[in-house]
Amino acid sequence: MYPNKFENLILKFQNLPGVGRKTAERYAFETLNWEQQKKEEFVNALQVLIDGVDTCKVCGNLSDGDICSICSDQNRDHTLLCVVQSPKDILAIESIQEYKGVYHVLNGVINTSKGILPEDINIDSLVDRINKDEINEVILALDPTVEGETTSLYIEKLIGKDVLVTRLAYGIPMGGHLDYTDSLTLLKAFQGRK
Amino acid sequence: MYPNKFENLILKFQNLPGVGRKTAERYAFETLNWEQQKKEEFVNALQVLIDGVDTCKVCGNLSDGDICSICSDQNRDHTLLCVVQSPKDILAIESIQEYKGVYHVLNGVINTSKGILPEDINIDSLVDRINKDEINEVILALDPTVEGETTSLYIEKLIGKDVLVTRLAYGIPMGGHLDYTDSLTLLKAFQGRK
Repeated sequence: MYPNKFENLILKFQNLPGVGRKTAERYAFETLNWEQQKKEEFVNALQVLIDGVDTCKVCGNLSDGDICSICSDQNRDHTLLCVVQSPKDILAIESIQEYKGVYHVLNGVINTSKGILPEDINIDSLVDRINKDEINEVILALDPTVEGETTSLYIEKLIGKDVLVTRLAYGIPMGGHLDYTDSLTLLKAFQGRK
Repeated sequence: MYPNKFENLILKFQNLPGVGRKTAERYAFETLNWEQQKKEEFVNALQVLIDGVDTCKVCGNLSDGDICSICSDQNRDHTLLCVVQSPKDILAIESIQEYKGVYHVLNGVINTSKGILPEDINIDSLVDRINKDEINEVILALDPTVEGETTSLYIEKLIGKDVLVTRLAYGIPMGGHLDYTDSLTLLKAFQGRK
Protein backbone atom coordinates (compact mmCIF):
# COMPACT_ATOMS: atom_id res chain seq x y z
CA MET A 1 0.00 0.00 0.00
CA TYR A 2 2.76 2.45 0.94
CA PRO A 3 5.46 3.19 -1.65
CA ASN A 4 8.02 0.39 -1.71
CA LYS A 5 10.90 2.35 -0.18
CA PHE A 6 8.72 3.66 2.62
CA GLU A 7 7.28 0.21 3.30
CA ASN A 8 10.84 -1.08 3.43
CA LEU A 9 11.71 1.60 6.01
CA ILE A 10 8.81 0.44 8.19
CA LEU A 11 9.86 -3.20 7.86
CA LYS A 12 13.43 -2.35 8.85
CA PHE A 13 12.29 -0.39 11.92
CA GLN A 14 10.37 -3.52 12.91
CA ASN A 15 13.74 -5.25 13.28
CA LEU A 16 14.45 -3.14 16.37
CA PRO A 17 13.77 -5.01 19.62
CA GLY A 18 10.20 -4.69 20.86
CA VAL A 19 9.03 -2.69 17.85
CA GLY A 20 5.86 -3.90 16.11
CA ARG A 21 4.06 -2.68 13.01
CA LYS A 22 2.34 0.32 14.65
CA THR A 23 5.47 1.63 16.37
CA ALA A 24 7.52 1.12 13.20
CA GLU A 25 4.95 3.14 11.23
CA ARG A 26 5.12 5.85 13.86
CA TYR A 27 8.92 5.95 13.65
CA ALA A 28 8.80 6.05 9.85
CA PHE A 29 6.28 8.90 9.65
CA GLU A 30 8.00 10.84 12.43
CA THR A 31 11.48 10.58 10.92
CA LEU A 32 10.12 11.44 7.47
CA ASN A 33 8.71 14.69 8.88
CA TRP A 34 11.99 15.71 10.54
CA GLU A 35 13.97 18.61 9.17
CA GLN A 36 16.55 17.62 6.58
CA GLN A 37 19.50 18.27 8.92
CA LYS A 38 18.03 16.10 11.70
CA LYS A 39 17.46 13.30 9.19
CA GLU A 40 21.04 13.50 7.94
CA GLU A 41 22.47 13.48 11.47
CA PHE A 42 20.36 10.41 12.25
CA VAL A 43 21.48 8.50 9.17
CA ASN A 44 25.11 9.55 9.68
CA ALA A 45 25.05 8.40 13.30
CA LEU A 46 23.91 4.95 12.14
CA GLN A 47 26.97 4.70 9.93
CA VAL A 48 28.83 3.57 13.09
CA LEU A 49 26.97 0.26 12.79
CA ILE A 50 28.68 -0.47 9.49
CA ASP A 51 32.05 0.98 10.47
CA GLY A 52 31.88 -0.92 13.76
CA VAL A 53 32.90 0.19 17.25
CA ASP A 54 36.37 -0.57 18.58
CA THR A 55 36.55 -2.86 21.57
CA CYS A 56 39.30 -2.67 24.19
CA LYS A 57 41.95 -5.30 23.48
CA VAL A 58 42.35 -5.89 27.22
CA CYS A 59 38.86 -6.06 28.68
CA GLY A 60 36.47 -6.18 25.70
CA ASN A 61 34.68 -2.97 26.67
CA LEU A 62 33.54 -0.58 23.91
CA SER A 63 36.39 1.82 23.29
CA ASP A 64 37.51 4.75 21.17
CA GLY A 65 40.91 3.13 20.59
CA ASP A 66 42.83 -0.09 21.26
CA ILE A 67 42.70 0.31 25.04
CA CYS A 68 39.63 1.67 26.82
CA SER A 69 39.76 4.59 29.25
CA ILE A 70 39.29 2.31 32.27
CA CYS A 71 42.11 -0.11 31.40
CA SER A 72 44.49 2.76 30.64
CA ASP A 73 43.68 4.56 33.92
CA GLN A 74 46.68 3.98 36.23
CA ASN A 75 44.77 5.35 39.24
CA ARG A 76 42.51 2.30 39.21
CA ASP A 77 43.24 -0.92 41.07
CA HIS A 78 44.39 -3.35 38.38
CA THR A 79 44.50 -6.29 40.84
CA LEU A 80 40.70 -6.16 41.23
CA LEU A 81 38.78 -7.60 38.29
CA CYS A 82 35.01 -7.41 37.81
CA VAL A 83 33.51 -9.81 35.24
CA VAL A 84 30.35 -8.54 33.50
CA GLN A 85 28.10 -9.71 30.68
CA SER A 86 27.95 -6.54 28.61
CA PRO A 87 29.45 -3.02 28.39
CA LYS A 88 26.06 -1.75 29.61
CA ASP A 89 26.77 -3.28 33.03
CA ILE A 90 30.04 -1.34 33.31
CA LEU A 91 28.09 1.90 32.99
CA ALA A 92 25.71 0.79 35.75
CA ILE A 93 28.57 -0.15 38.08
CA GLU A 94 30.52 3.03 37.31
CA SER A 95 27.45 5.09 38.20
CA ILE A 96 27.67 4.03 41.88
CA GLN A 97 31.23 5.51 42.02
CA GLU A 98 32.30 2.84 44.49
CA TYR A 99 34.23 0.32 42.42
CA LYS A 100 37.80 1.33 41.53
CA GLY A 101 39.06 -1.87 39.91
CA VAL A 102 39.04 -2.91 36.25
CA TYR A 103 36.58 -4.96 34.21
CA HIS A 104 36.34 -7.91 31.90
CA VAL A 105 33.41 -8.08 29.44
CA LEU A 106 32.27 -11.61 28.52
CA ASN A 107 29.93 -10.36 25.79
CA GLY A 108 27.26 -12.87 26.70
CA VAL A 109 26.71 -15.84 28.98
CA ILE A 110 26.77 -19.58 28.39
CA ASN A 111 23.39 -20.61 26.99
CA THR A 112 23.34 -24.11 25.57
CA SER A 113 19.74 -23.81 24.35
CA LYS A 114 20.81 -20.89 22.14
CA GLY A 115 24.04 -22.65 21.21
CA ILE A 116 26.28 -20.20 23.11
CA LEU A 117 29.17 -22.27 24.45
CA PRO A 118 32.08 -21.19 26.69
CA GLU A 119 34.31 -20.71 23.63
CA ASP A 120 31.83 -18.23 22.11
CA ILE A 121 32.26 -15.70 24.93
CA ASN A 122 35.45 -14.05 26.24
CA ILE A 123 36.30 -16.66 28.87
CA ASP A 124 39.66 -17.70 27.36
CA SER A 125 40.95 -14.13 27.47
CA LEU A 126 39.71 -13.87 31.07
CA VAL A 127 41.72 -16.95 32.12
CA ASP A 128 44.75 -15.59 30.22
CA ARG A 129 44.47 -12.32 32.09
CA ILE A 130 44.19 -13.99 35.47
CA ASN A 131 47.24 -16.13 34.72
CA LYS A 132 49.39 -13.30 33.37
CA ASP A 133 48.40 -10.26 35.42
CA GLU A 134 48.57 -9.98 39.16
CA ILE A 135 44.90 -10.34 40.13
CA ASN A 136 43.91 -10.55 43.80
CA GLU A 137 40.15 -10.79 43.44
CA VAL A 138 37.70 -11.66 40.69
CA ILE A 139 34.17 -10.32 41.23
CA LEU A 140 31.57 -12.19 39.20
CA ALA A 141 28.84 -9.63 38.45
CA LEU A 142 26.67 -11.54 35.98
CA ASP A 143 22.87 -11.29 35.85
CA PRO A 144 21.14 -13.52 38.46
CA THR A 145 19.59 -15.77 35.79
CA VAL A 146 20.01 -19.50 35.16
CA GLU A 147 22.51 -18.72 32.37
CA GLY A 148 24.37 -16.18 34.49
CA GLU A 149 24.65 -18.66 37.38
CA THR A 150 25.85 -21.41 35.04
CA THR A 151 28.51 -19.13 33.62
CA SER A 152 29.61 -18.01 37.10
CA LEU A 153 29.98 -21.61 38.25
CA TYR A 154 31.89 -22.50 35.08
CA ILE A 155 34.33 -19.61 35.57
CA GLU A 156 34.78 -20.39 39.27
CA LYS A 157 35.81 -23.95 38.42
CA LEU A 158 38.17 -22.81 35.67
CA ILE A 159 40.02 -20.25 37.77
CA GLY A 160 40.75 -22.72 40.53
CA LYS A 161 41.72 -21.70 44.02
CA ASP A 162 44.68 -19.35 43.39
CA VAL A 163 42.49 -16.25 43.24
CA LEU A 164 39.72 -15.00 45.51
CA VAL A 165 36.43 -15.26 43.61
CA THR A 166 33.42 -13.33 44.92
CA ARG A 167 29.85 -12.68 43.79
CA LEU A 168 27.56 -9.69 44.23
CA ALA A 169 25.19 -9.99 47.18
CA TYR A 170 21.62 -11.09 46.44
CA GLY A 171 18.77 -9.75 48.49
CA ILE A 172 15.83 -7.40 48.67
CA PRO A 173 16.29 -4.32 46.47
CA MET A 174 16.43 -0.99 48.31
CA GLY A 175 13.04 0.68 48.43
CA GLY A 176 11.38 -2.69 47.82
CA HIS A 177 8.64 -4.27 49.90
CA LEU A 178 9.00 -7.62 51.65
CA ASP A 179 5.56 -8.80 50.57
CA TYR A 180 6.23 -8.01 46.91
CA THR A 181 9.58 -9.80 46.91
CA ASP A 182 9.61 -13.14 45.07
CA SER A 183 10.36 -16.19 47.20
CA LEU A 184 13.75 -16.94 45.61
CA THR A 185 15.00 -13.42 46.37
CA LEU A 186 13.62 -13.66 49.90
CA LEU A 187 15.41 -17.00 50.37
CA LYS A 188 18.69 -15.42 49.18
CA ALA A 189 18.11 -12.49 51.55
CA PHE A 190 17.66 -14.89 54.49
CA GLN A 191 20.69 -16.96 53.54
CA GLY A 192 22.80 -13.83 53.16
CA ARG A 193 21.68 -12.18 56.43
CA LYS A 194 24.42 -10.68 58.58
CA MET B 1 31.44 6.92 29.18
CA TYR B 2 30.70 5.08 25.94
CA PRO B 3 32.88 5.80 22.90
CA ASN B 4 31.79 9.06 21.25
CA LYS B 5 30.34 7.52 18.10
CA PHE B 6 28.37 4.95 20.06
CA GLU B 7 27.10 7.58 22.50
CA ASN B 8 26.03 9.63 19.49
CA LEU B 9 24.12 6.63 18.12
CA ILE B 10 22.24 6.34 21.43
CA LEU B 11 21.44 10.06 21.44
CA LYS B 12 20.10 9.89 17.90
CA PHE B 13 17.89 6.89 18.71
CA GLN B 14 16.47 9.01 21.54
CA ASN B 15 15.10 11.36 18.86
CA LEU B 16 12.58 8.69 17.88
CA PRO B 17 9.12 9.31 19.38
CA GLY B 18 8.63 7.76 22.81
CA VAL B 19 12.20 6.48 23.05
CA GLY B 20 14.10 7.30 26.24
CA ARG B 21 17.68 6.62 27.30
CA LYS B 22 17.17 2.95 28.23
CA THR B 23 15.33 2.03 25.05
CA ALA B 24 17.87 3.93 22.93
CA GLU B 25 20.70 1.99 24.61
CA ARG B 26 18.83 -1.23 23.92
CA TYR B 27 18.40 -0.30 20.25
CA ALA B 28 22.08 0.67 19.97
CA PHE B 29 23.42 -2.54 21.53
CA GLU B 30 20.96 -4.70 19.61
CA THR B 31 21.75 -3.15 16.22
CA LEU B 32 25.48 -3.29 16.94
CA ASN B 33 25.19 -7.05 17.47
CA TRP B 34 23.30 -7.64 14.22
CA GLU B 35 24.99 -9.42 11.36
CA GLN B 36 26.77 -7.12 8.92
CA GLN B 37 24.19 -7.66 6.16
CA LYS B 38 21.26 -6.83 8.45
CA LYS B 39 23.04 -3.65 9.56
CA GLU B 40 23.66 -2.58 5.98
CA GLU B 41 20.05 -3.23 4.97
CA PHE B 42 18.89 -1.14 7.93
CA VAL B 43 21.16 1.80 7.13
CA ASN B 44 20.31 1.59 3.41
CA ALA B 45 16.58 1.60 4.16
CA LEU B 46 17.01 4.83 6.12
CA GLN B 47 18.53 6.47 3.06
CA VAL B 48 14.93 7.06 1.93
CA LEU B 49 14.69 9.74 4.63
CA ILE B 50 17.37 11.80 2.90
CA ASP B 51 16.23 11.02 -0.64
CA GLY B 52 12.65 11.79 0.39
CA VAL B 53 9.44 10.00 -0.56
CA ASP B 54 7.40 11.20 -3.53
CA THR B 55 3.94 12.48 -2.76
CA CYS B 56 1.04 12.28 -5.17
CA LYS B 57 0.61 15.58 -7.01
CA VAL B 58 -3.17 15.15 -6.88
CA CYS B 59 -4.02 13.99 -3.37
CA GLY B 60 -0.80 14.35 -1.34
CA ASN B 61 -0.61 10.66 -0.45
CA LEU B 62 2.80 8.97 -0.32
CA SER B 63 3.51 7.65 -3.79
CA ASP B 64 6.07 5.83 -5.92
CA GLY B 65 5.68 8.37 -8.73
CA ASP B 66 3.89 11.62 -9.55
CA ILE B 67 0.41 10.13 -9.20
CA CYS B 68 -0.42 7.57 -6.50
CA SER B 69 -2.00 4.21 -7.24
CA ILE B 70 -5.38 5.32 -5.86
CA CYS B 71 -5.64 8.52 -7.94
CA SER B 72 -4.60 6.69 -11.11
CA ASP B 73 -7.11 3.87 -10.56
CA GLN B 74 -9.95 4.47 -13.04
CA ASN B 75 -12.16 1.88 -11.35
CA ARG B 76 -12.54 4.13 -8.32
CA ASP B 77 -15.25 6.76 -7.93
CA HIS B 78 -13.49 10.08 -8.56
CA THR B 79 -16.60 12.10 -7.60
CA LEU B 80 -16.31 10.92 -3.98
CA LEU B 81 -13.54 12.60 -2.00
CA CYS B 82 -12.41 11.62 1.52
CA VAL B 83 -10.32 14.19 3.41
CA VAL B 84 -7.80 12.71 5.90
CA GLN B 85 -5.02 14.04 8.13
CA SER B 86 -2.24 11.68 7.17
CA PRO B 87 -1.38 8.88 4.69
CA LYS B 88 -1.67 6.49 7.66
CA ASP B 89 -5.43 7.10 7.74
CA ILE B 90 -5.74 6.05 4.09
CA LEU B 91 -4.30 2.67 4.98
CA ALA B 92 -6.82 2.30 7.81
CA ILE B 93 -9.75 3.22 5.57
CA GLU B 94 -8.52 0.98 2.73
CA SER B 95 -8.34 -1.94 5.14
CA ILE B 96 -12.15 -1.97 5.56
CA GLN B 97 -12.52 -2.47 1.76
CA GLU B 98 -15.74 -0.45 1.74
CA TYR B 99 -14.71 2.96 0.41
CA LYS B 100 -14.21 3.16 -3.35
CA GLY B 101 -13.68 6.93 -3.77
CA VAL B 102 -10.45 8.93 -3.77
CA TYR B 103 -8.61 10.78 -1.00
CA HIS B 104 -7.11 14.13 -0.13
CA VAL B 105 -4.33 14.25 2.48
CA LEU B 106 -4.15 17.47 4.52
CA ASN B 107 -0.83 16.52 6.15
CA GLY B 108 -1.90 17.91 9.50
CA VAL B 109 -4.74 19.85 11.09
CA ILE B 110 -5.15 23.49 12.07
CA ASN B 111 -3.50 23.97 15.47
CA THR B 112 -3.02 27.61 16.39
CA SER B 113 -1.18 26.78 19.64
CA LYS B 114 1.49 24.98 17.57
CA GLY B 115 1.37 27.71 14.91
CA ILE B 116 -0.18 25.46 12.25
CA LEU B 117 -2.48 27.71 10.20
CA PRO B 118 -4.82 26.82 7.30
CA GLU B 119 -2.15 27.82 4.77
CA ASP B 120 0.33 25.33 6.29
CA ILE B 121 -1.77 22.31 5.39
CA ASN B 122 -3.12 21.20 2.00
CA ILE B 123 -6.44 23.07 2.17
CA ASP B 124 -5.82 25.30 -0.86
CA SER B 125 -5.24 22.31 -3.12
CA LEU B 126 -8.41 20.73 -1.69
CA VAL B 127 -10.51 23.76 -2.62
CA ASP B 128 -8.85 23.81 -6.07
CA ARG B 129 -9.75 20.20 -6.57
CA ILE B 130 -13.37 20.69 -5.52
CA ASN B 131 -13.71 23.65 -7.88
CA LYS B 132 -12.05 21.98 -10.86
CA ASP B 133 -13.06 18.32 -10.62
CA GLU B 134 -16.60 17.02 -10.54
CA ILE B 135 -17.00 16.15 -6.87
CA ASN B 136 -20.37 15.04 -5.53
CA GLU B 137 -19.48 14.40 -1.91
CA VAL B 138 -16.66 15.38 0.43
CA ILE B 139 -16.27 13.09 3.44
CA LEU B 140 -14.36 14.75 6.30
CA ALA B 141 -12.55 11.91 8.09
CA LEU B 142 -10.32 13.83 10.50
CA ASP B 143 -9.50 12.70 14.04
CA PRO B 144 -12.28 13.55 16.55
CA THR B 145 -10.04 16.00 18.45
CA VAL B 146 -10.45 19.73 19.07
CA GLU B 147 -8.02 20.45 16.23
CA GLY B 148 -9.70 17.97 13.90
CA GLU B 149 -13.13 19.49 14.61
CA THR B 150 -11.79 23.03 14.04
CA THR B 151 -10.30 21.99 10.73
CA SER B 152 -13.51 20.21 9.66
CA LEU B 153 -15.60 23.30 10.45
CA TYR B 154 -13.12 25.54 8.60
CA ILE B 155 -13.26 23.34 5.51
CA GLU B 156 -17.06 23.11 5.62
CA LYS B 157 -17.33 26.91 5.59
CA LEU B 158 -14.79 27.23 2.77
CA ILE B 159 -16.46 24.74 0.47
CA GLY B 160 -19.83 26.39 0.72
CA LYS B 161 -23.09 24.67 -0.20
CA ASP B 162 -22.39 23.45 -3.74
CA VAL B 163 -21.07 20.09 -2.58
CA LEU B 164 -22.46 17.58 -0.10
CA VAL B 165 -20.15 17.54 2.94
CA THR B 166 -20.42 14.61 5.36
CA ARG B 167 -18.60 13.44 8.46
CA LEU B 168 -17.87 9.97 9.81
CA ALA B 169 -20.37 8.78 12.44
CA TYR B 170 -19.37 9.13 16.09
CA GLY B 171 -20.52 6.56 18.60
CA ILE B 172 -19.64 3.61 20.73
CA PRO B 173 -16.83 1.53 19.21
CA MET B 174 -17.77 -2.05 18.31
CA GLY B 175 -16.90 -4.49 21.08
CA GLY B 176 -16.93 -1.61 23.57
CA HIS B 177 -18.86 -1.43 26.82
CA LEU B 178 -21.44 1.25 27.57
CA ASP B 179 -20.17 1.81 31.09
CA TYR B 180 -16.59 2.28 29.91
CA THR B 181 -17.57 4.78 27.22
CA ASP B 182 -16.68 8.41 28.02
CA SER B 183 -19.61 10.78 28.34
CA LEU B 184 -18.85 12.79 25.18
CA THR B 185 -18.84 9.64 23.06
CA LEU B 186 -22.06 8.48 24.74
CA LEU B 187 -23.65 11.87 24.02
CA LYS B 188 -22.65 11.60 20.34
CA ALA B 189 -24.03 8.06 20.26
CA PHE B 190 -27.40 9.31 21.60
CA GLN B 191 -27.51 12.26 19.22
CA GLY B 192 -26.67 10.00 16.29
CA ARG B 193 -29.18 7.25 17.13
CA LYS B 194 -31.31 5.93 14.30
